Amino acid sequence: MRLIARFEYDGTDYSGWQIQPGDTTVQGEIEKALYSLCRRHVAVTGAGRTDAGVHAASMPAHFDIAPGEYSRIQNGLNTMLPSDISCLSVQQVDDDFHARFHAVSRSYVYSIGTGRHPLNSRFEFQPGIDNLDIEAMKKAVKYSSGYNNWRGFAKEGGGNTTWDMTVSKVSVVENIRGWTLAITANRFLRGVVRIWSGTIFRIGAGRIPPEAVRSILETTDKRLAGPSLPACGLILTEVRYPHEI
Amino acid sequence: MRLIARFEYDGTDYSGWQIQPGDTTVQGEIEKALYSLCRRHVAVTGAGRTDAGVHAASMPAHFDIAPGEYSRIQNGLNTMLPSDISCLSVQQVDDDFHARFHAVSRSYVYSIGTGRHPLNSRFEFQPGIDNLDIEAMKKAVKYSSGYNNWRGFAKEGGGNTTWDMTVSKVSVVENIRGWTLAITANRFLRGVVRIWSGTIFRIGAGRIPPEAVRSILETTDKRLAGPSLPACGLILTEVRYPHEI
Repeated sequence: MRLIARFEYDGTDYSGWQIQPGDTTVQGEIEKALYSLCRRHVAVTGAGRTDAGVHAASMPAHFDIAPGEYSRIQNGLNTMLPSDISCLSVQQVDDDFHARFHAVSRSYVYSIGTGRHPLNSRFEFQPGIDNLDIEAMKKAVKYSSGYNNWRGFAKEGGGNTTWDMTVSKVSVVENIRGWTLAITANRFLRGVVRIWSGTIFRIGAGRIPPEAVRSILETTDKRLAGPSLPACGLILTEVRYPHEI
Repeated sequence: MRLIARFEYDGTDYSGWQIQPGDTTVQGEIEKALYSLCRRHVAVTGAGRTDAGVHAASMPAHFDIAPGEYSRIQNGLNTMLPSDISCLSVQQVDDDFHARFHAVSRSYVYSIGTGRHPLNSRFEFQPGIDNLDIEAMKKAVKYSSGYNNWRGFAKEGGGNTTWDMTVSKVSVVENIRGWTLAITANRFLRGVVRIWSGTIFRIGAGRIPPEAVRSILETTDKRLAGPSLPACGLILTEVRYPHEI
């Protein structure tokens, strides 16, 4: 039987989601936990890959087990996982369900904090700035919808052959802790959220105009795009499927 | 000249506030940073001591410097401090100001989280419980005002000779992440917040009645008191002085 599980993790101490020889990864820890519970290798397929240091509030992943193992997994997964990875839910899905291919949208949040606050520093970028131009940032994020070729914000060398992304929701919110950028799209090219966030940040700092976002999307010219912001500020918040599962 | 500085810290990796030989402490790190800036030992006196693993949103501390060192300290302290300790502000005070003796109130918050959430686990206790009896807890915290002998909630062996504490504010709030207990008093005996929180938690779990708090305060009998909850859930949030400084 095929299961979907949703995982929350603090990515600080991991070399990202995906298994890589010699590195400690989130997928690797989950497969290790499943090995302890099932006494055999159970391959886990995530809805996507998060980079080193990036967090997830909810990362779905599917894997196949024998029916007799179901209760063991429900009860035992959190006991076996390290404390910075948590299984939020497990449920059965159709045998042809695919966590990655069937996902219709992914949502990320990038947090920029004011000042230098250790109590928040694991989950936000703290550039030591107390003031960003929120109106310019709002204008800039609006330009981020309506263009499909996101090559200008993507990291090269990610093995991409197509560069389309359909962004369905973007926002920037100012709150007592700083600024939160949110973006939802059908898919994400490599590096896009952190480079896009870096561009919005640069716009908020008054270094380039809001229209730069439009130019980058229209021309796919990376030269105006911001630097990639640090991984700690990025959280994968939600992955959706066509039907509620 | 005498300065007061306020520090925020993530206490996870520290053996508490106070300097102890062989241990990494918050006070020790601050004195190290001041040594780098002033090239001599500058003794730092905090408003109190937090235990190993306890955090502070704002811990005031005073120390004396030469007038010529002031700007160096304002500009350089955060550069020298490790990333999990931050200096929020520095200002001059009267030469007889004492961060500990002149403090009139201290406030702590203890957070209990639902479920198992790595993104919050550094700053809350996550007992894996989704349901506590908030009405019983509210009743229990109300009993916490009005009694002055807190020996029943204090850790023995702390070198205390008096056991009085005047609690001026207590509350328990339920929110989407769990429960937050808050307590403000003129002073705190050793271990009180974590044992008091453990007692309120036990009451919320239905194991003892809300009136237990009253009995413990009236009789100073520790037998009904809860276990000391883990340090990670505890944050020193504020220390006040007679005049705004």
